[in-house]
Amino acid sequence: MTDLAMIRAAAARLHGHVRRTPLLSSPFLDQIAGRRVWVKAECLQHTGSFKARGGWAAVSALAPEALARGVIAYSSGNHAQGVALAAARHGAPCVIVMPADAPRLKIANTRALGAEVVLYDRATEDRDAIGSGLAAARGLSLIKPFDDAQVIAGQATCGLEIAQQATAEAIEKADVLVCCGGGGLTAGIALALEGTGFRARPCEPEGFDDTARSLALGVPQRNARLTGSICDAIITPEPGKLTFPILRRLCGPGLVVSDDQALHAMALAFSRLKLVLEPGGAVALAAALFLPDQISGPDVIAVATGGNVDAATFATALSRFPV
Amino acid sequence: MTDLAMIRAAAARLHGHVRRTPLLSSPFLDQIAGRRVWVKAECLQHTGSFKARGGWAAVSALAPEALARGVIAYSSGNHAQGVALAAARHGAPCVIVMPADAPRLKIANTRALGAEVVLYDRATEDRDAIGSGLAAARGLSLIKPFDDAQVIAGQATCGLEIAQQATAEAIEKADVLVCCGGGGLTAGIALALEGTGFRARPCEPEGFDDTARSLALGVPQRNARLTGSICDAIITPEPGKLTFPILRRLCGPGLVVSDDQALHAMALAFSRLKLVLEPGGAVALAAALFLPDQISGPDVIAVATGGNVDAATFATALSRFPV
Repeated sequence: MTDLAMIRAAAARLHGHVRRTPLLSSPFLDQIAGRRVWVKAECLQHTGSFKARGGWAAVSALAPEALARGVIAYSSGNHAQGVALAAARHGAPCVIVMPADAPRLKIANTRALGAEVVLYDRATEDRDAIGSGLAAARGLSLIKPFDDAQVIAGQATCGLEIAQQATAEAIEKADVLVCCGGGGLTAGIALALEGTGFRARPCEPEGFDDTARSLALGVPQRNARLTGSICDAIITPEPGKLTFPILRRLCGPGLVVSDDQALHAMALAFSRLKLVLEPGGAVALAAALFLPDQISGPDVIAVATGGNVDAATFATALSRFPV
Repeated sequence: MTDLAMIRAAAARLHGHVRRTPLLSSPFLDQIAGRRVWVKAECLQHTGSFKARGGWAAVSALAPEALARGVIAYSSGNHAQGVALAAARHGAPCVIVMPADAPRLKIANTRALGAEVVLYDRATEDRDAIGSGLAAARGLSLIKPFDDAQVIAGQATCGLEIAQQATAEAIEKADVLVCCGGGGLTAGIALALEGTGFRARPCEPEGFDDTARSLALGVPQRNARLTGSICDAIITPEPGKLTFPILRRLCGPGLVVSDDQALHAMALAFSRLKLVLEPGGAVALAAALFLPDQISGPDVIAVATGGNVDAATFATALSRFPV
């Protein structure tokens, strides 16, 4: 189980390899939200998302013989790049199993980071069977995207930084809003902030609010659909087995925003912070800006989790929500 | 005259009020350039450009009675916002003289930062006459955009950070490419880096390369035109009176890029760094990426000076240069 000692050990391993991302603000955003809004810019992390933290933590925790055999991950997105980068820097072979219809750029980027990409057909092939076959044949270590104690510890290092950076800004107490899919980052940040004046709260898109509903009911709930949101990076069927107990114990209520609110937050991050956010990475900022009645206190912190968005989607956000 | 003592004093006054912006990199940019490319992300500075540094340095250097009377600046862009923010935080009245046809958003932003905006008609009115009339009547202190020793000292703090951050990355020697208009930032960085392994070099758009030509000839040269570049933030008629002698003494040769290269660099900063750059703020990155033969050594540092770009121009860059 992930605890503070494991988080601090992960932070030590990540030091010098993962960026300490800045905590940004803008008076224009404060005015919209009616309180000070602080944005933890994880889109500036290596590979464009916080996933580089968990990937590094998990890969760097492996024994030398496991590293030499290599690692494997299933992902069409940010986790793939985080694991691929960490594996490359550790000299470990890396296999990423991706759907053949994943965006070509994501496949190309993952390959460019040194990974062997194995494509499968979503309609006719079983991803798990392909992955376990490869893992068994080559002795690869599987790195799960969120239900992994070391991955959670890696994501938690973002929470340690938030506490330090907020304290430096003389903030003693605030909700920390986190874009939430499987809950690895939210759980990690919640653990890192346990016992402080800061409280993690998961943020999700409408229709994919399994975590918010699970927290409200106290037991895991599933989403009715698995497609149909622009927030592709944070769509998961249900909260994780490891993550949900942490969220239930430590997090405040979930926040739910519309796709339009996420796009609007992207446009405001463009004009007011000069940051590129992907829709799933803008959900927490959207909640901070557009759900003021569900937040209390003079400050709110939103984690901008990623910026891996295609140009067409980004241009849509800018044209739909001109400043 | 700006010297290291003045720069260090400015850094002390700026501490806690101006951001220490990150030094970012991407393996994808390294591949294009053929060397390691480091980007000093001044677009993440308060007000979206490095001008917040010079504005703060100049305003904070004023005596209490001068602060109480207030400050004035002429600017349609980034300098306006930098001075307005610093004046507001010092409780000093602030007048910004702007052309009536400046982008409405820039006028609105400057007002939102607390400044009194005085509009003039470029065709029929004399900006200097309006400004000096107001300054004399109210006892306002004029803050020039680059030919001011304290402004240069403020911009120089960016150079101090670059030296520290590059050293932390084990870089001992590199060209530091700087988007250059009047030369305040380039001169400041050159002074801050004097005697180190780092050398400042001005970067300009084609047709507006007064500084590059002035350095090559050893005497100030003028631009033939004052309009017609998308890099509006860095178009000035000729190098500054204070700045040019510093540039001539300390800088390497100037670099000149096309408007298309600036747009291409914007698209790459979007996809690879998750940063929003304006055309004039992308000129140094464009030189780092697309003029490899004019640079030597395994590392190059490019200052991304600002991100105050409208959505239409940004969307043009992304659609013209898809990744």
